[in-house]
Amino acid sequence: MADLQNVYSYIDEHKDSMIADLQRVVRQPSISSTGTGVRECAALLVEMMTEIGIDAQVMETAGLPVVFGQINDAGPDKPTLVIYNHYDVQPADPESDWESPPFEARIVGDRMIGRGTTDAKGNLMAHLKAVEALRATSGMPINVKFIFDGEEESSSPSLPGFVESHLDLLKADAALSFDGGFDAGDIPRINLGSSGLLFIEMSARGGTHDLHSARARLVPNPAWKLVWALASMKAPDGKILIDGFYDAIRPPTDLERGLLEKANWNDEAQMRDLGVDAFLGGVTGVDALQQLLFTPTCNIAGFASGYVGEGHKTLLPSTATVNVDFRLVADQDPTDILAKVRAHLDKHGFTDIEVRGESGIEPSRTAADSPFAQVVVEAARQVYQQEPTLRPTGDASGRQAVWLAGKLGGIPGAGTAVGPPDWHGHAANEFMTLGHFINGVKYAATIWALFAEAPRS
Amino acid sequence: MADLQNVYSYIDEHKDSMIADLQRVVRQPSISSTGTGVRECAALLVEMMTEIGIDAQVMETAGLPVVFGQINDAGPDKPTLVIYNHYDVQPADPESDWESPPFEARIVGDRMIGRGTTDAKGNLMAHLKAVEALRATSGMPINVKFIFDGEEESSSPSLPGFVESHLDLLKADAALSFDGGFDAGDIPRINLGSSGLLFIEMSARGGTHDLHSARARLVPNPAWKLVWALASMKAPDGKILIDGFYDAIRPPTDLERGLLEKANWNDEAQMRDLGVDAFLGGVTGVDALQQLLFTPTCNIAGFASGYVGEGHKTLLPSTATVNVDFRLVADQDPTDILAKVRAHLDKHGFTDIEVRGESGIEPSRTAADSPFAQVVVEAARQVYQQEPTLRPTGDASGRQAVWLAGKLGGIPGAGTAVGPPDWHGHAANEFMTLGHFINGVKYAATIWALFAEAPRS
Repeated sequence: MADLQNVYSYIDEHKDSMIADLQRVVRQPSISSTGTGVRECAALLVEMMTEIGIDAQVMETAGLPVVFGQINDAGPDKPTLVIYNHYDVQPADPESDWESPPFEARIVGDRMIGRGTTDAKGNLMAHLKAVEALRATSGMPINVKFIFDGEEESSSPSLPGFVESHLDLLKADAALSFDGGFDAGDIPRINLGSSGLLFIEMSARGGTHDLHSARARLVPNPAWKLVWALASMKAPDGKILIDGFYDAIRPPTDLERGLLEKANWNDEAQMRDLGVDAFLGGVTGVDALQQLLFTPTCNIAGFASGYVGEGHKTLLPSTATVNVDFRLVADQDPTDILAKVRAHLDKHGFTDIEVRGESGIEPSRTAADSPFAQVVVEAARQVYQQEPTLRPTGDASGRQAVWLAGKLGGIPGAGTAVGPPDWHGHAANEFMTLGHFINGVKYAATIWALFAEAPRS
Repeated sequence: MADLQNVYSYIDEHKDSMIADLQRVVRQPSISSTGTGVRECAALLVEMMTEIGIDAQVMETAGLPVVFGQINDAGPDKPTLVIYNHYDVQPADPESDWESPPFEARIVGDRMIGRGTTDAKGNLMAHLKAVEALRATSGMPINVKFIFDGEEESSSPSLPGFVESHLDLLKADAALSFDGGFDAGDIPRINLGSSGLLFIEMSARGGTHDLHSARARLVPNPAWKLVWALASMKAPDGKILIDGFYDAIRPPTDLERGLLEKANWNDEAQMRDLGVDAFLGGVTGVDALQQLLFTPTCNIAGFASGYVGEGHKTLLPSTATVNVDFRLVADQDPTDILAKVRAHLDKHGFTDIEVRGESGIEPSRTAADSPFAQVVVEAARQVYQQEPTLRPTGDASGRQAVWLAGKLGGIPGAGTAVGPPDWHGHAANEFMTLGHFINGVKYAATIWALFAEAPRS
């Protein structure tokens, strides 16, 4: 195993220049929602990656570019890790809410304040500085590929297409991402799964134009059509009635259930946050957490038809639209679920309801006892000298490492984070602490070193 | 029977002054939506009514005033007719769309152009001029009470309360109203019924605030609650599932069905108007007309929850609201139906759905073979020398004579009209023809004369 003490010493000795390099990247805005500075930031990263020996390039997508890089010093006998990160940031409006300008990267005490310091430039730079430290000391223990997304803060619309057309280029033995910060109590967190998502719009028509509601005796009401279709899709007890909907679900293992039991779930605190007196189905404790992480949904995200508001209009609407999102869990497939929704509607006589499927995100889950998951856990223990929180999967859907791992044929994947807790995500005065950043560099180097020695999964 | 030829001669000889009096009333704006001129118009009517021997007064309501009048010359042996009309008008914006100013009442050829010429000042003045003509010739054949609404164009919000607190004052043997114009082809029309209406708002809550839709695993979705509640209220075949909903319905008589068969209903023309290829339930012909006039509805007039629009928000909404209107048919009672909706929801476990009932309008229907209905039909034949269209009931809901008849204990009621067809209702260049107005005066006088001789129903 690589002599990590040498690597850690190098990192400590060069922390000022590493922090300065982070400042340099933060000072280049890269706001994907407006496009501001995104290409300039991509070019800057390629320059910095090239400087430290990474074969890097800007690669075009259907939208904003991906920065791709690889470094194969370790040779073909060593495993390859693909690292997902994103270099775009949220907007910083209004700047007047910031205590220092959002793209100045000012250091105040132990904090670097700026948009992207944690989300995700600090997380991203931890990897690049680990390359620098390892190449200056014991050498790269593994081969690494980098895919830096330029659209993460805009839902990564071009990423699926990019990944699908570059499967060979991205081929790897495991996938990793760093994003965000530690859990409350300054505890490192490792996510091994993410939810999937299928978002659909269902629409129905009645007559060609809105009518006086007296005509409802002769003209079909599209809102009623959607009501009946929806009621056929999910029962009041929450059971989703679409044929085959639950077929592909992989239930939690005993190990995963055990992780939930260690998760310090607090019903009261969660109920307070969510604004409810009880959870759906009356679940409590670990069962509630399991329901949150391991069950799919069929959720009405929006329903619009006719008029609701001041006064009352006795209207027979001509159109009705409902948005439904399905949170999916491994190994449900959004394309398959969309086909099952259509088949369900046809079977129940709702052939004239139009369904448009959008934004399929595949769920993914890596087994908690897989060698790669254990590598990341062990690296967190070594660097942070404490037990990380291991989350078997997340409730939200995203296209980071765990998702990428699924797209790359089901290789193991993990998402973790190097930023501080309470880092003001997406808000004014986002910050990284210098300590968290430097530890993050060590965390990346340690994961790679341990992965080099781990059994191949 | 009164010598109507004398009365008709008087009307013909005095038509210029009668037309001038209509102009005088039209020239006084009385827009209920803004209140403009309404009280001035009420005062003018009281002055004109007093001049011709009617005991008239302005009576306050919770909103704009009612003009009430009575004339009991005929004595206690003769029947009493209560006449509903309205003296308020629609706004006339934009005035630039009018070929002459809307409150000038300019006469061009045979037309008087102006807001309210037909709706309803021309209809209203036909009654007052009939009083003048009868008192100048053969005397009043019956006793008449007048209730002139000042809020009809604003849905008559104060009328139910006014009627309920003046039942004795309004006591009568039958109720009549004149409003609007003839059917296409210049055919007089007599309505014997009107639909009822119950408008409700149903609302449900989930958490205290909108949430990320991943939380739908633990937090109830209020849009789903409404979907399930609605689906429990009405089946996809259109049957309303609320216990007792249909109990009070009076089915059409053979006579009423016969009237439908004479109604010249045209499926194709109606489908074109409504923008559909077929009617609900596949009905056609007279069956479609019967469905339109004699069946109640449970109509979703509006459904709003979450977000529907550009982009897609994966949102778990905290609130959902649906507006439902029920068109009711005789003898359903909106108050009773509201109670049955509440009982239905409670029985099906939807106790936490809030229901606010608004705008109850009672349905009402007078038998087509009642003596009063026959009086109106016979008067139309005599004055217009053609067979009127007799509609056993209307699809829309309103608070005119037929409704008033129901409120006054189920006395017979009829609504008819003296204006021309295509009179530009609620639009620019509303007009009355001088001929239709003068015939309307004769029509009123004839109805009264025939009613004096008719058997008491």
